[in-house]
Amino acid sequence: MGDYRRVWIHERQGTVNLGTQALSIIGVPDFPEVAGGDCLGTLITSVLRSSTISVSHNDIFVIAQKIVSKAERRIVHLDKVRPSAMARAWGNAHDKDPRLIEIVLSQTRRIVRMERGNLIVENLQGFVCANAGVDSSNVSKGTVSLLPKDCDQSASRIREELEQEFGVALSVIIADTFGRPWRRGLVDVALGVSGLAPLLDYRGKQDSFGNVLKATLIAVADELASAAELVMGKTEGIPIALIRGFGYDVSSGCAQEMIRPAEEDLFR
Amino acid sequence: MGDYRRVWIHERQGTVNLGTQALSIIGVPDFPEVAGGDCLGTLITSVLRSSTISVSHNDIFVIAQKIVSKAERRIVHLDKVRPSAMARAWGNAHDKDPRLIEIVLSQTRRIVRMERGNLIVENLQGFVCANAGVDSSNVSKGTVSLLPKDCDQSASRIREELEQEFGVALSVIIADTFGRPWRRGLVDVALGVSGLAPLLDYRGKQDSFGNVLKATLIAVADELASAAELVMGKTEGIPIALIRGFGYDVSSGCAQEMIRPAEEDLFR
Repeated sequence: MGDYRRVWIHERQGTVNLGTQALSIIGVPDFPEVAGGDCLGTLITSVLRSSTISVSHNDIFVIAQKIVSKAERRIVHLDKVRPSAMARAWGNAHDKDPRLIEIVLSQTRRIVRMERGNLIVENLQGFVCANAGVDSSNVSKGTVSLLPKDCDQSASRIREELEQEFGVALSVIIADTFGRPWRRGLVDVALGVSGLAPLLDYRGKQDSFGNVLKATLIAVADELASAAELVMGKTEGIPIALIRGFGYDVSSGCAQEMIRPAEEDLFR
Repeated sequence: MGDYRRVWIHERQGTVNLGTQALSIIGVPDFPEVAGGDCLGTLITSVLRSSTISVSHNDIFVIAQKIVSKAERRIVHLDKVRPSAMARAWGNAHDKDPRLIEIVLSQTRRIVRMERGNLIVENLQGFVCANAGVDSSNVSKGTVSLLPKDCDQSASRIREELEQEFGVALSVIIADTFGRPWRRGLVDVALGVSGLAPLLDYRGKQDSFGNVLKATLIAVADELASAAELVMGKTEGIPIALIRGFGYDVSSGCAQEMIRPAEEDLFR
């Protein structure tokens, strides 16, 4: 282990040019169904080693939240849930399973909107989204998945496993599909990040006209998550994509940095 | 013209498999400064013909809004603006140029939030964003850019020019950088779309467990715009990216379809 680690620590300290001009996004095919307790690093390694896809220095793994939740046993059986009065009232009023509402409320720190059948909340990790990220797609009938308890920590653990296996510096993003207030359709965003800075700061830099950029902080981790979704699809069973060619500096940044603080939030 | 048109009309009618597993995003380098009245189709063609980048059937061109605005003479000199009382009051209170505020208000249909120095509005085309998309980066000092008047129409015109030049079916997305209420950092979204459906509808389809997907409408045009931003950067002078390998059916869809109707909007 010692040898490769020296190599990639050296590579890590080098600075990568941000002026990247081409990148590839590769969906990892034939991924097996994930069960509670599985080690995702081991699973990903074995799938990649039996594929034609090689892994390179600074590759970014984007991993669908759903398989992380499954590996971390974040699956709840509806049968085991006793809905509260509020969950029963809301569920019955909007033709939703009161047990599902109860699970959503159990993952909620603050309700942002509870209106017209929609439940937009701030979840226990601070993400504002519909239903606290509780979801019944791509899981067995009668069960729902919760978000991982700490998505940054999950990303960091998987990154460590993958770096040990492949012997190069890598990044990991855990992605989920979120709605937006004023635009129809969902896009993938980054809930967990390890290895790269989620926000790229152009503030203070000059554009080609010599104007100093004032407000340009780009959420590259969210853009990487969205880019990966394009090859993952929702019914195809491609829960992992590899992004290659995105120049970045290795960083200790995490997805929690992307949560807007309450004092800047105009839409509480 | 007749011959290639027959060819690509035939190709257009074919169905492309959506299960794409790899895509490439290529930044188009060495793009010249765009001036009012320039034909972007001609400019793009000449840059690509003198580069090593070839153009293939179903390639998607993502074009930064800024150069479309420049070509369409959507640049305003601050000198020529007389701010209203409201623009003066707001500008002075928040240390912003009242003439800039006046221009923002001139592009506004409805104010969503006017709070703590932020001006979040619904612009004349229906996009909810900061400052109606009026921006002073990457333009000459003393000027600002407005969004194109009709981004879908601009996308459609550029697509037609490019298809005529290259003789293959293509798509065009006009992208700009927008903020989000609860997440820090900006991401690119699609303001104009021609050639592909901006929303991919999974509703009614089954996942691998036989669950029928209920709420999954993916804003692929926004994800494509975000993916392209990763190679464009903000200070590098790469206003165009080519996305290759995204399987899609040719469609008459447009970006206006992505605007959430008022009756579904919980954050007006």
